[in-house]
Amino acid sequence: MDILEAIKDRRSIRTYVRRQVEDEKLLRVLEAARLAPSARNMQEWKLIIVKDKTTREKLMKAAGNQVFVAQAPIVIVACGVLADYTMRCGQLSYPVDVAIAVDHMTLQAHAEGLGCCWVCAFSEPEVKEILGIPAEVRVVNLLTMGYPAEHPAPRARKELAELVSYEKFA
Amino acid sequence: MDILEAIKDRRSIRTYVRRQVEDEKLLRVLEAARLAPSARNMQEWKLIIVKDKTTREKLMKAAGNQVFVAQAPIVIVACGVLADYTMRCGQLSYPVDVAIAVDHMTLQAHAEGLGCCWVCAFSEPEVKEILGIPAEVRVVNLLTMGYPAEHPAPRARKELAELVSYEKFA
Repeated sequence: MDILEAIKDRRSIRTYVRRQVEDEKLLRVLEAARLAPSARNMQEWKLIIVKDKTTREKLMKAAGNQVFVAQAPIVIVACGVLADYTMRCGQLSYPVDVAIAVDHMTLQAHAEGLGCCWVCAFSEPEVKEILGIPAEVRVVNLLTMGYPAEHPAPRARKELAELVSYEKFA
Repeated sequence: MDILEAIKDRRSIRTYVRRQVEDEKLLRVLEAARLAPSARNMQEWKLIIVKDKTTREKLMKAAGNQVFVAQAPIVIVACGVLADYTMRCGQLSYPVDVAIAVDHMTLQAHAEGLGCCWVCAFSEPEVKEILGIPAEVRVVNLLTMGYPAEHPAPRARKELAELVSYEKFA
């Protein structure tokens, strides 16, 4: 699938059909994450693939009872495992690196006919407790994934003129 | 261009040929950023497109004299303009949102035959001074862009088994 078309067509999917995701599709989605660039090529992140229904229900509760977190056949929990590495620009590397890897997954999932939703509204302590995530590891987001049961209208986006300036900040 | 192929083929490009980037290509790259998802669809980021040679030379100095920053015909300076919005998971939204937008640009640039490099080693105060960026805005990265004069070998990546676990953190 063409990149710009995928970016245009992709939606946040919050309703899924009852159908398992084929392993080969999941593996290509994970491969898209694996090949993502990262600060100093450290790849200091971890993805936890959750398919177990009871665990997904626990994650749903940790995510403010967003029903689709339990409904999606797969929830991928994206973690930064080196949470204190600061790049020379002053930014922590892990939120950027995890975001790139997860973004790759959302695009490849779309190319596979799957839908995803970034979930960033959750209790990190609860998610860590559910999945046995060590204290020093940070959970950046949950990504739900499955076959979509909806194709929402595109969200409004700002015009380029609002988002871009030339030569100087404006 | 196919997404997974683009992800596989993309390289960090640090040598550029002397050739301007066509406006229509740059616009499609920016469109890929514009359509990126963001926390609450706020799109609280700004891209500064720098083509001016003198400014690129100043940015090069602010980036520890990495020569390709001045050599690239375009440097895109990616900023978070709402630097204090924390999502319910405890993460600031802007590094994640900026990373998604920039990642989209790197993939679309590759599809256009262009090369990019994420630059995160720079002095943020110096970059802000050069471009007149307000104090409350954060600069996440510089993205160099142009026609590549190299196609480096792929970087080694960790195996999936190191990056992924199932049902629990492991």
